[in-house]
Amino acid sequence: MSAQDPITFTLFVRLFRDGKCFGPGIAELLTRVDRTRSLRSAAMEMNLAYSKAWRIMKESEQALGFALLNSQTGGVHGGGAVLTEEARAMLEGYEGFVAELNAFADEAFERRFGIGGSLFLKEK
Amino acid sequence: MSAQDPITFTLFVRLFRDGKCFGPGIAELLTRVDRTRSLRSAAMEMNLAYSKAWRIMKESEQALGFALLNSQTGGVHGGGAVLTEEARAMLEGYEGFVAELNAFADEAFERRFGIGGSLFLKEK
Repeated sequence: MSAQDPITFTLFVRLFRDGKCFGPGIAELLTRVDRTRSLRSAAMEMNLAYSKAWRIMKESEQALGFALLNSQTGGVHGGGAVLTEEARAMLEGYEGFVAELNAFADEAFERRFGIGGSLFLKEK
Repeated sequence: MSAQDPITFTLFVRLFRDGKCFGPGIAELLTRVDRTRSLRSAAMEMNLAYSKAWRIMKESEQALGFALLNSQTGGVHGGGAVLTEEARAMLEGYEGFVAELNAFADEAFERRFGIGGSLFLKEK
């Protein structure tokens, strides 16, 4: 490992309302519920205990002040969990925000830390 | 708690080289060492065990591939720890990067989640 190897970054974005209300974990969980129509399936895909996935969901709902999932029973698709309108707006808002930040950060990071950046490889 | 209460955000920025190499913890530690000239004093201020502060410093140095602290013994100031030139550049680079991201994020967040933003308080 030398000072010429590239440095990379990660951004971790968390939202707060009444306590922490949204972040990468709940975003991934909602995305998977949206596809599988099941909190249990979403939890399994993430190697989470169902009880933990349920708790993450409930804590997020409590902090946000609105429901994220509607449970449907029966019907042609045999029931399952679907995202509320608010959950979809929240997920899209969060993911859009994170994507926008990452695009900006890529440019800012390259300028500061990348090849030709101000921090490394500068002529002395 | 209602859907009209404001949502806020936090950004957590971590840098990687050979593993994680820089983040808010090491940045705060270096800032305090720079002021106190002592890793022990810096650790105490942060309620960290000295052994933990030392480990954080060493892991960061290993991942970065350069030293962050020089130990000075004796001299008119009675010795102590001082930041290397690379540590100072790294700290300034990281803090500048984080400040720049936060300024951009403030604007993007307000646009998406703030009063008048697209997510909440919109007319239906």
